[in-house]
Amino acid sequence: MSLELRKRLFAEFDSQMLVDPHTHINPHTPASTTLADILGYHYYTELAHSAGMDKQQIEQDGLEPQEKVRRLMANLAPLNNTIQYSWFVEMVSEFFGVPSESVTADNWETLYDVSSRKMSQSDWAQQVLRKSKLEAVFLTNDFDDPLEGWDTSVYVPCLRTDDLVFRLSDGNLRGRLEAATDLSITDVGTLEQAIGARFEHFVRNNARACAISLPPSFEPTRVSEGRAATAWTHICQEGESADSRHHRALGQFVFWRITELCADFHLPFDLMIGVNRGVYADGVFQGRDLYDSRVSLIQYEELFNAFPQVTFPVSVLASVTNQELASFAWIFPNVVTNGHWWYSNTPSFIERDAAARLEAVPRSKQIGYYSDMYKLEFGLPKFRMYKRVLAKVLAERFVLDRGWSESQAIQLGTELLRGNVDRIFGREATSD
Amino acid sequence: MSLELRKRLFAEFDSQMLVDPHTHINPHTPASTTLADILGYHYYTELAHSAGMDKQQIEQDGLEPQEKVRRLMANLAPLNNTIQYSWFVEMVSEFFGVPSESVTADNWETLYDVSSRKMSQSDWAQQVLRKSKLEAVFLTNDFDDPLEGWDTSVYVPCLRTDDLVFRLSDGNLRGRLEAATDLSITDVGTLEQAIGARFEHFVRNNARACAISLPPSFEPTRVSEGRAATAWTHICQEGESADSRHHRALGQFVFWRITELCADFHLPFDLMIGVNRGVYADGVFQGRDLYDSRVSLIQYEELFNAFPQVTFPVSVLASVTNQELASFAWIFPNVVTNGHWWYSNTPSFIERDAAARLEAVPRSKQIGYYSDMYKLEFGLPKFRMYKRVLAKVLAERFVLDRGWSESQAIQLGTELLRGNVDRIFGREATSD
Amino acid sequence: MSLELRKRLFAEFDSQMLVDPHTHINPHTPASTTLADILGYHYYTELAHSAGMDKQQIEQDGLEPQEKVRRLMANLAPLNNTIQYSWFVEMVSEFFGVPSESVTADNWETLYDVSSRKMSQSDWAQQVLRKSKLEAVFLTNDFDDPLEGWDTSVYVPCLRTDDLVFRLSDGNLRGRLEAATDLSITDVGTLEQAIGARFEHFVRNNARACAISLPPSFEPTRVSEGRAATAWTHICQEGESADSRHHRALGQFVFWRITELCADFHLPFDLMIGVNRGVYADGVFQGRDLYDSRVSLIQYEELFNAFPQVTFPVSVLASVTNQELASFAWIFPNVVTNGHWWYSNTPSFIERDAAARLEAVPRSKQIGYYSDMYKLEFGLPKFRMYKRVLAKVLAERFVLDRGWSESQAIQLGTELLRGNVDRIFGREATSD
Repeated sequence: MSLELRKRLFAEFDSQMLVDPHTHINPHTPASTTLADILGYHYYTELAHSAGMDKQQIEQDGLEPQEKVRRLMANLAPLNNTIQYSWFVEMVSEFFGVPSESVTADNWETLYDVSSRKMSQSDWAQQVLRKSKLEAVFLTNDFDDPLEGWDTSVYVPCLRTDDLVFRLSDGNLRGRLEAATDLSITDVGTLEQAIGARFEHFVRNNARACAISLPPSFEPTRVSEGRAATAWTHICQEGESADSRHHRALGQFVFWRITELCADFHLPFDLMIGVNRGVYADGVFQGRDLYDSRVSLIQYEELFNAFPQVTFPVSVLASVTNQELASFAWIFPNVVTNGHWWYSNTPSFIERDAAARLEAVPRSKQIGYYSDMYKLEFGLPKFRMYKRVLAKVLAERFVLDRGWSESQAIQLGTELLRGNVDRIFGREATSD
Repeated sequence: MSLELRKRLFAEFDSQMLVDPHTHINPHTPASTTLADILGYHYYTELAHSAGMDKQQIEQDGLEPQEKVRRLMANLAPLNNTIQYSWFVEMVSEFFGVPSESVTADNWETLYDVSSRKMSQSDWAQQVLRKSKLEAVFLTNDFDDPLEGWDTSVYVPCLRTDDLVFRLSDGNLRGRLEAATDLSITDVGTLEQAIGARFEHFVRNNARACAISLPPSFEPTRVSEGRAATAWTHICQEGESADSRHHRALGQFVFWRITELCADFHLPFDLMIGVNRGVYADGVFQGRDLYDSRVSLIQYEELFNAFPQVTFPVSVLASVTNQELASFAWIFPNVVTNGHWWYSNTPSFIERDAAARLEAVPRSKQIGYYSDMYKLEFGLPKFRMYKRVLAKVLAERFVLDRGWSESQAIQLGTELLRGNVDRIFGREATSD
Repeated sequence: MSLELRKRLFAEFDSQMLVDPHTHINPHTPASTTLADILGYHYYTELAHSAGMDKQQIEQDGLEPQEKVRRLMANLAPLNNTIQYSWFVEMVSEFFGVPSESVTADNWETLYDVSSRKMSQSDWAQQVLRKSKLEAVFLTNDFDDPLEGWDTSVYVPCLRTDDLVFRLSDGNLRGRLEAATDLSITDVGTLEQAIGARFEHFVRNNARACAISLPPSFEPTRVSEGRAATAWTHICQEGESADSRHHRALGQFVFWRITELCADFHLPFDLMIGVNRGVYADGVFQGRDLYDSRVSLIQYEELFNAFPQVTFPVSVLASVTNQELASFAWIFPNVVTNGHWWYSNTPSFIERDAAARLEAVPRSKQIGYYSDMYKLEFGLPKFRMYKRVLAKVLAERFVLDRGWSESQAIQLGTELLRGNVDRIFGREATSD
């Protein structure tokens, strides 16, 4: 009974047009051109490498796409249990009509050719969006992105601020900020001016959010202009080797300033909390980051209190932080739960995390899912994975356990999948 | 099959008379007088506020009960997914005969009138207890409560000690302690005397437990009389602004002394571990507390070793601490698992936490549930929520997974719900 | 449907011959000789003690086995809900043909006699292995074990290194190391030589792994020879009372050296992370250890990066660390998930931990289970517990949720149960 019910709920969710509120899509090349773009996704390369495939096999200079696919196909068997592999199977089946069981390390070439032909069609990206039921996807743009050359109502700009908060000691980066703003950045004041100018640019170009990923050790706090000025001087002179207290102070100062700008420009500020970069030094590209799960949202107490007018869609990397996230969203009006991120983006974690949120966080404050994808083809299997889990939780915990009607459950799921995304990142945001 | 089985187990549990071992009931006005008492519970006000309702709307001076209910009813829709809202639906249906779907922001007035009439009946509190199958409820009394004017076998006194441990820097509070004991408290010695006198008073009046809620940072340790005397001097002179080490030392000293008194008077000491007070400064009344889940029961190592003769019913605020709780209760004879507290008092957390305890902690050392309620009407839906989850866990993990008979499962559940409460807080406790 | 499916999967898993990759079996007396060996297992004594049984009752000098069993049988009722008790029931039923319900505190003597007769058969250990479908079990040998007098292909040596890393301040222990190696250990250099000699001895005698259990505070790091020499001098002179920084430095030095030897000798290094020893000082034998769940695998970042050539099968004591374990095994080629340890070795934790691993860690990098047993009889019920949970997870999350065939699920489970054990600890390991 429960299985049939889950299928009905899933079918409803899967029939709706959605907006994906966080991706890493490049709007100039949103879709894949060969299977190498798909199997080159870090989930496959890092899992294959973890299972024993040599990094040089994957990242060899001048490697042709077809050869890269051949090599990776030969190394997928040890990871065919993972949910990430199931995304591959679903993409292959849905986009290229190849049944899941029939692709192997021996006959992948047919698939390669079929898929390459399809991907070379001029409207391939539109086909993928349509089939994936995605109406728009949010981007994650560098601060100096000109935001030109695409339809920003489909590929919605979002200002990524990691570089500004954590990498200002890099002179090239400061140079990029100067180039993007035509300002000479000589002190904290001109730095603030430059960042403000970038906000104006982004909001003028339909940006709907600001985003940042944060290490577990980060504790936002208000830092005085004077303290920031001292830090700035040291960092400009000493670069990366400046005392860590200066790096911390300047980062906190810029973070706080960015939050003020989010308030001024009415932008939600996506906080993605908990990642340690570069933990596995010899890992493959994008396969080096891990985390320390000993992080607490209490570190954000001052921030959440200081900015009641800013909406913070919060993602946590480790599922052990999910109860805190649910509790903080239950108490703080400006904290919103946001999707299921990275290492917590697998069915068993989504199931328990979504269940905890659904029973204690107001329904209007939960953003169900985002794909985090780099290529459009991943939207379909990732969203479907989430919709299946959502259907399971609603079927078991609301319809069966609590006596809800199916239509109530569908309404709730739909609000998480679509309604809240529209409202929270919605058209109300203006550059006034 | 499992659903039917769960219903049968639930029906058994729901037919039994219970004792609620932890509430915040005021024995002089135990039940609600209008719906405003029910919807004024912090779960509704904080969730409505979190979902966007202005705090002033809720806490306006001189707000009439009926107007308060009107305003809250207009703001419940965004939280109708929460388990807390389901408590409201169940109360309305069970106590006032109004089916769940029929109360809305538009027609709540009929409900208001019906419920007000019922609540004005002189035996309303008794009716509620009877319908809720509660034979007695434990209170949480201030140290200077005279404990007079009610039947202490139904409303059982329990000495709350937060003030004594954490707020002695408040001169008014010290004054209240002097007034309650007729002692002049001039030093640590007279302080100890005064606290001892309060224990005598409580035990003479049928108190069955001592209780305290503790922040994540608290680490009980034995502090010497001399160190405590130094802290006392500083705190009496400097009040709140005394060095935090003095506050900590005096708090630890008093906590240890209270535990010794629990030993002397044979009182269990309820430890409720993990709350940070006042995190959301602008929150509604009682809606400001959150937590840092990075707490460990290892902080209580010295305490549990030092007092083998004291029973510690332990509650943890965050579900991530539940495995530690289960493990400590499995090893330490004096540690008992106690209910499902606050942010962990929702079905999915209860389910996983109860399952972990049931499979590894001796059955005699588990107190199934307490309501933590402020008004009697909440006992019914809260206990039923627990009984449903308990039935689910026993059905799925004992009857189906492990081949237990239904009657074995019912016996185990009953022991958690009733037998252990009677024994652990039982009549053996005397003032000798 | 799901229950039948689970049973079929379980039956498949239970029909296969396995190798148990971590036990504390004494190869000279691998099986029990009376029921007192079984009920004397710390799980029963500590749970009975926790439920109120006096420690002296259990550990009285000169207590006869039969009397010990009589006393324990009289104290099992309060823990008959635990999964540990269910192991007892299953052993009694499978090995001695006594149905589970029929043994009580009143009629245990028949069971005692029946079991004693069986256990006195000369091939009892072989019978138990056969019935338990165990082909070989790994041991946990002290560094000075001569490794003589048994078939090391059935009872496979494994070098336990806790003593070398954490107890070198004990002069007797240093004496044992000298005796075992015929070396005079006067400095760090001769210490290294002695440890190296022990590796040679172990590998010559078919050792397949090195193992260590680690406290939550441990952080492996490379320590210079000079710093280690300073620590060594202090520790030899001052013993246990040497500054804790010297203890830490020497422990880290030895740990790093042991890891280098694992690399040299191609031995996997089992890391069992998270135990605090002696927390409950008055606990029964082996019933004193608990933990602080605030541990992170990020503490092992330097180690995992420094030794890509060493395989680390990692066990974590607390289930809250399981997601980190799954993520680190997903990223680091040399990190492998290893079983379900101690306080996390109960069905609900196994279920959630195994599910998280199965969906995100390459199948080739998961060692399903080890028993950790002290007597052979426990292999059967412990492995069966795991196989039942594995069958449940595969049935519900792979066959039903993800559409896998039963045979695919059986293959995956079999790989975890057997294939990976053979390969990871396999015959490739040589002393070259």
